[in-house]
Amino acid sequence: MKTAATNTIRILGIDPGLRSTGFGVIDKAGNTLAYVASGCVKTDAEGSLPQRIKTILDGLAEIIATYQPQQAAIEIVFVNVNPQSTLLLGQARGAAIAALVTANLPVAEYTALQVKQAVVGHGKAAKQQVQAMVARLLQLPGTPSADAADALACAIAHAHGGQGMGALATVGRRMRNGRLV
Amino acid sequence: MKTAATNTIRILGIDPGLRSTGFGVIDKAGNTLAYVASGCVKTDAEGSLPQRIKTILDGLAEIIATYQPQQAAIEIVFVNVNPQSTLLLGQARGAAIAALVTANLPVAEYTALQVKQAVVGHGKAAKQQVQAMVARLLQLPGTPSADAADALACAIAHAHGGQGMGALATVGRRMRNGRLV
Repeated sequence: MKTAATNTIRILGIDPGLRSTGFGVIDKAGNTLAYVASGCVKTDAEGSLPQRIKTILDGLAEIIATYQPQQAAIEIVFVNVNPQSTLLLGQARGAAIAALVTANLPVAEYTALQVKQAVVGHGKAAKQQVQAMVARLLQLPGTPSADAADALACAIAHAHGGQGMGALATVGRRMRNGRLV
Repeated sequence: MKTAATNTIRILGIDPGLRSTGFGVIDKAGNTLAYVASGCVKTDAEGSLPQRIKTILDGLAEIIATYQPQQAAIEIVFVNVNPQSTLLLGQARGAAIAALVTANLPVAEYTALQVKQAVVGHGKAAKQQVQAMVARLLQLPGTPSADAADALACAIAHAHGGQGMGALATVGRRMRNGRLV
């Protein structure tokens, strides 16, 4: 069965990117977290931006349809030293959020600092530390890829509370004209 | 009748922005351009980014459903002096493109330079010049707002050719996994 059990909350974490958008799905039942799925949506570097955005939208729509998460959490991306890269990353993140809100998922946002604090306990953790802690917290047999680990870490940060727990109040609600109704 | 006549191509131009996304719809029949509609989708500055993206998606989906354009053209945004603004603008543009590709519209991209060259004849035109020329080319009784004028100008640039005419070949085709099929 792919849907979450009734007493659990299924969370979809997203690590946005134009080349590769990481995703991670976990179930939270009380204080217990369980791994459901993870991976990434890769786009064709030779495609046009609209084509690559379509790939991200279609990929995330398929993931949402398959795993039916109830909440979503997405990393707040940092400003790159290269302004053109910042613009591209922004557009990829806008597309990822578009896929989430189109599926009527409440979307919480977390900085990389918040995600690292939630998973490793401090904000200056190295990428490998995040991967190792994600594997440990979710009792994975191996280490997930960096993109998938970041996405799972974002979902864990959301499960652990933080600013995003306010989003729990929005479950089952819908948005109209950008407002909750 | 809201749909385009059979011998015309209906083009939706978009001037992306987080606060306000301008749109302009024109019909091209041979060398004749006709104004159909224009305006903008405004988002609530106090809303969260996901809420604002939802507003852009819903607004553009409604415009596409109402006017049923066959092609879309969107301005390539410039990198802002403020990196945080660049990131926000990028996310708004990503959402706008998401709305267009979700509706299976072929999307052409034009720089502000290309748009100004197509409408005014040179790339250093002032905003007021663009507005005045858009009003003249489309025989409007008054001057459209700046956002709407930029969106109409982008649609005109697409109608006039430029790099984007390659997109004409994609009409009626669909994309799968970011590729034309």
